[in-house]
Parts: sequence; structure tokens; C-alpha cells
Amino acid sequence: MIKKNKTIDNFFMLLALKEAKKGFPYTYPNPLVGSVIVKNRKILSKGYHKYFGGPHAEVDAITKLSKKDLENSTLYVTLEPCSTYGKTPPCTDLIIKSKIKRVVIGTLDPNPLNFKKGVEILKKNKIDVDFVSEEVRKKCIEINEPFFKNMTEKLPYVVIKFASSIDSKIANKYYYSKWISSEKSRIFAHKLRLASDMIVVGANTLIKDNPYLNVRYFKTKKQPSVCIIAPNSKIPENLNVFLEKRDVYILTKKHVYSKAKVIEPVIKNGEIDLYDFLKKIYEMGFRNILVEGGGKTIGSFIKQDCFDKISLLLSPVIIGSDGINAIESSFGLNKNEVGIKLNMKAFKKIENDIYIEFTKPNLSLPFVKGE
Amino acid sequence: MIKKNKTIDNFFMLLALKEAKKGFPYTYPNPLVGSVIVKNRKILSKGYHKYFGGPHAEVDAITKLSKKDLENSTLYVTLEPCSTYGKTPPCTDLIIKSKIKRVVIGTLDPNPLNFKKGVEILKKNKIDVDFVSEEVRKKCIEINEPFFKNMTEKLPYVVIKFASSIDSKIANKYYYSKWISSEKSRIFAHKLRLASDMIVVGANTLIKDNPYLNVRYFKTKKQPSVCIIAPNSKIPENLNVFLEKRDVYILTKKHVYSKAKVIEPVIKNGEIDLYDFLKKIYEMGFRNILVEGGGKTIGSFIKQDCFDKISLLLSPVIIGSDGINAIESSFGLNKNEVGIKLNMKAFKKIENDIYIEFTKPNLSLPFVKGE
Repeated sequence: MIKKNKTIDNFFMLLALKEAKKGFPYTYPNPLVGSVIVKNRKILSKGYHKYFGGPHAEVDAITKLSKKDLENSTLYVTLEPCSTYGKTPPCTDLIIKSKIKRVVIGTLDPNPLNFKKGVEILKKNKIDVDFVSEEVRKKCIEINEPFFKNMTEKLPYVVIKFASSIDSKIANKYYYSKWISSEKSRIFAHKLRLASDMIVVGANTLIKDNPYLNVRYFKTKKQPSVCIIAPNSKIPENLNVFLEKRDVYILTKKHVYSKAKVIEPVIKNGEIDLYDFLKKIYEMGFRNILVEGGGKTIGSFIKQDCFDKISLLLSPVIIGSDGINAIESSFGLNKNEVGIKLNMKAFKKIENDIYIEFTKPNLSLPFVKGE
Repeated sequence: MIKKNKTIDNFFMLLALKEAKKGFPYTYPNPLVGSVIVKNRKILSKGYHKYFGGPHAEVDAITKLSKKDLENSTLYVTLEPCSTYGKTPPCTDLIIKSKIKRVVIGTLDPNPLNFKKGVEILKKNKIDVDFVSEEVRKKCIEINEPFFKNMTEKLPYVVIKFASSIDSKIANKYYYSKWISSEKSRIFAHKLRLASDMIVVGANTLIKDNPYLNVRYFKTKKQPSVCIIAPNSKIPENLNVFLEKRDVYILTKKHVYSKAKVIEPVIKNGEIDLYDFLKKIYEMGFRNILVEGGGKTIGSFIKQDCFDKISLLLSPVIIGSDGINAIESSFGLNKNEVGIKLNMKAFKKIENDIYIEFTKPNLSLPFVKGE
């Protein structure tokens, strides 16, 4: 029998989590998963899910070891092992074959096709299954917030991203913004695009900036789709956004396009119903949405509470009050209401800028109890 | 003879710098100074300047040691030892008496009364004097930017401080702002006040918020003075700012006050000439100015390039575009000008907020070469 110790289990799970993060952002829309194989408290191998369609974390760690090493070992994996044929065969099969004695799981898989099934199969095959502490389990869920939202709410995960001056402007009054942020920040912004399957942009910003909205600094098999919020304006189809080989969508009831597909918006209280929009694009297969601007588009997503994360690149520059607002919307605050409260989740320096990530406070993640 | 090694000198000087920082903000308007006494590469004692009027860093370190210990030791001090009678007797006297063999200096004293004099006196008394590397010397200057500015430019050091939402608002449209920032941030803001001898505030903000503008979370012998920028408005003398025992100044040509002293502004291009204001208050004895708002006052100081540092407390909240701007001024940017560039100097998390410090890029510090 393997001696069990919760503190040690938590420790190895945190290592597996570190592995999981290495997959960012290449696994999307699949979750980030990491694993560690341990015997007699020694790490034998580590693995992670490297890219969408590639081997799962368990497979990555298991295939590095000999039959002898694997026998009676403990596998730590941040997400419940899959039990179905997807892009790869079920991991539970390989675990059973490897004669691994015990599997410690970070969190159950929120995908209804897999939920608790992996655990059941392992147990049936006399493999011990254990779980980590609540705190560590939360971390295992947090790294896959987009995946958990997709699976449990059937909605895409929405990231609002903008680079602003310290007075929250994205351009001077002439719409000039080259470059508010440093080069490394711009490269980082492309990494965020890489984790997205759709970039959302407003008509004004698209016409004024004429951006490519593509992933340039990283290799990618597929450029993210683009959706232009343009209920009224007619979008000229010679803009740079149409140069890339990918789908362009336009949210409009008014116009017809040859290079873009039209999504019909629902209008509610005179505004586009963004919740309806998100439901529609989820059904179309989109899982990770990046809202890049401009101010009015970002303002609408915030006002309608249709976002999960705000990724702010704050640059050490002051533009002045005649500049263009990064967030352009009033939220009808009451006299004693200071504003929409967020949670500061992470921050780091990127060159001369500071990157700050905000999520909603008290995010109600689907905490699927495993124990 | 003592063996000299620049790398080791730099190392001990960085330790002395760490000591120096402990004095913040109680030494103001005096500089932060730290010292370390070393013999045979062993640290015998450390010291720092603890409060205005208190023993200097050298004295603090020296008085901890016996005569025997001090003999032939090396003193590291971040600022050239003083050679004149101020609030305390000259440090050079004590160093000579202590039979310290060698003094390593972080930077020369920019005060014309002391500049290079300490070094000369020590050398005359056969004490070796050495300096650290350029990089470390820069750090020794940087911790005392206010003092260096005072001494070399004969102007107060100006810190602009505000707490804003991520969309750079300081209040909702009803001027409600309780509380944008967390409690720890507010305590931190009082520490900034403690380092100031004058708080500057605009008439509008003063009347709307009716703040006390005092130091509450820390013990202090003297509350900072307040200067109200009120060229037109008549300030009611029953506001909270008048409750404290301290000087209140009002910048105006129009009105007379019984509880406040009037400073007459110079008007240039229809605006108050802030450079003239800074010159005047320097002559009155003010060395460290904290500009606390509102948006127009902060905007004017930025526009007229009358600031040295911006201390931003960014809170995870969104107020919306109908809120009150933290910086309210247009800078007449050209078409291809993105804005006023700053340098991000430091940042840290304070509770749920993030504190970010900006200075001007390429700050031309008076780099007094010592070697």
C-alpha cells in the first residue's frame, strides 16, 4: 500500500499545475493539463498537454517511463483523466495498462461526457483515486476558467483587452495611438489572440485603425475569426482585416457582404443584446472571445455584464482628457455607488508597461466536489 | 592597509542603502541616509538616519561599537558625511575620533554647504576615501531625489498623488468616491502626506469633498500645510481643512481670508504660473509638495511640467465615462504625438489595489561625480 499524505499530495499537484501552465495558449479550446508521476516520494517524470489535438498530459508523462518504473507509482493530474475517444484514445486505458497504483486528481472534468467517468473506471480497475485540498483544487479550476465556463454555462469565455495610458485613453484626439505600449506588450497581446478563436471589434475602431487583427508574432495553424459589431455602418470590404484567410463575421441587420458572414443581432432597449450574441457564437463553435475595442464596444460588454476577464496593458504615458476613452459607457450608477467592482487577479511588468488582469469578484466557478 | 575591492564595496553600500530606506518618511526634508561599519569583511554595525533632527546614520552606527572595534574599520555611508554644525555636530569629527581607517561614500552631498567638504576633511586626516560604482551611486542619489532637487534646483519636489478606477476616474458623476481604494491604500496615502510639508488641492475638490487633508494613521509632530488653488472661488472658512493646527495658504488675488494666508499667483496665458508658485513656496521653506487633486489641478501641474513623480493607486473598479476624470487637461498634442511619456519606476500590490510610481523619463539628476 502507498502511504497517503495530503500535504505531499498538494505539493506534487502544484508541480503538475506548473507543468499545465506550459501549454498556454496552444491547447485552446482544450484545457491546460499537467501531470507528475511519483514513486517513493521521488518524481519520475512530468508531462503536460502541449497543443490542441496533441497527447494528453498523462500520456506525455507515462510514455517517458519504463514498465518497471510505472508499476505501483502515483500519477498526479490536474484534471480528471478522460475516458472517451476524442482526438486521442482514453487516458484511463493507458493508466490501467501501466499498472499505476494510485491517481491523485486536481479537479473533476466539467465536460458532461467525462464528468466522474474517469474516476469510476479507475476505481473499477482497483486503482486508488484521491483528491487534493480545496485550495489546490481551486487553483486547478482557475487555470482553466475558460474551459469550465464553456462546459458549464455553454457560453464562450470573454476577455476584454486594451492598452491604455495612465489616464485610460487609447489614442489622442486624432485617433493616433502608435505606440502607446511597448513592443513586448504588443507581442504579449498576440499571445492573447492565440488563445482566442474570435476577436470582436467595433466598426469605428476597425475603420479608423484598419488593423489586421491577426496573430503575427507566433506560429499558428489558424488565424482567429473576427466579428465586427456594425449594426449601422457599412464596412468596406477592402480593409486589412479581410486579407487573412479566415472567417469574418459582421453583426448587422442592415447590410449584406460578400467577404463576410452576417450574424443577426437581437436589439434590446435600443442596444445589441450581447448575451444573445454570445449564445449564438457558442452554438457556432466559438469558445474564447477577445474583445479588443474600441471604447464603446468594450463599454457595452462591461455594461451588459458580458465579460469574464479584463486584460489591461497600462503604459507610462498621459494623453489628456481630449483623448479617446478606453471604456466609453455610463453604467447608470446610483449616488452612493462607486462603480463596477473587479478582482485584481495578477499583474506583471512587461518592458516599461504593466500588465494587470481583472476578473469578477466572487467568481462563481462550478466547484464540482470530487470528494 | 585595507584591501580594496570594488565589488565588495558595492555590496556593502547596497546594504547601507537598505538601512537608509528604513528612515522613510520620517527624515523629511532631510535625506535618507544609511551606513554600515565593516572590518575584515565582517559587518560590525549598521545605522540609519531615523528622523528629522535625529542622529545621522554614521553616528547611529558608530555609537553601537567599542573603540577597539572601530579602529581600522571601514565605514560605508550612502551620502557624504556632513562637516558642519546643523541640528547635530559634524559627522566628520566623530569619524576622525573613532579612528575609522577608510570611508566609502555613496554620493557626494549636493548641499553647497557640504559638497566635497566632508571628503576633504577626512582626507586631510589621513582617512582613505573611496566611492562606489556608477550604478550604485545612482541608486544612492535616487532614494533622495527630493533632496537632490531641492539642493540643486532650489525648487520643491512635487509628487502628484491620486487613487483612480481602471478607467481613470476619481469619483462617479455625483462626486461620490467612498471608497475607490482599499483601506491599506488609504493608510499608504497618509504615509505620502507624512513625507510632505505641503498638500496642494484645487478649490472645487476641497469644497465638494470637504477633506481634512491631515495625517491620521501615523504619529506626527506637525501636520503638513495646505495650499488651496482658488484664484476665483471664495473658500468657506468653516471647511474641515481649517480644523487642524497648521498653516493654510490660498492662491488668489481676489479674496482676503482670516484663517488662511494668501499667496498671490502670477497669471500667464490665462493660467496660474505654477513654476512661479513653486519658486515662491521654496523660498517660504517648503521642500516636498503633494498635489492631491482634483483632476484640473493635477492636469495643470502635468501640463506645465511642474511635477517630479506621479503616485497612482489603481483600484479594481470601473466607474464609466460619465465619472470625474483623475487628470483633466488637454496637452495640445500634435497629430503624431501619443502623449507625455513617463518612466515606470516601481509598483506593488496594496491589498486589492496596485500602487504604481512614475517619474519623468531620462530624469536629469545632478550626477555629482565623486571620483
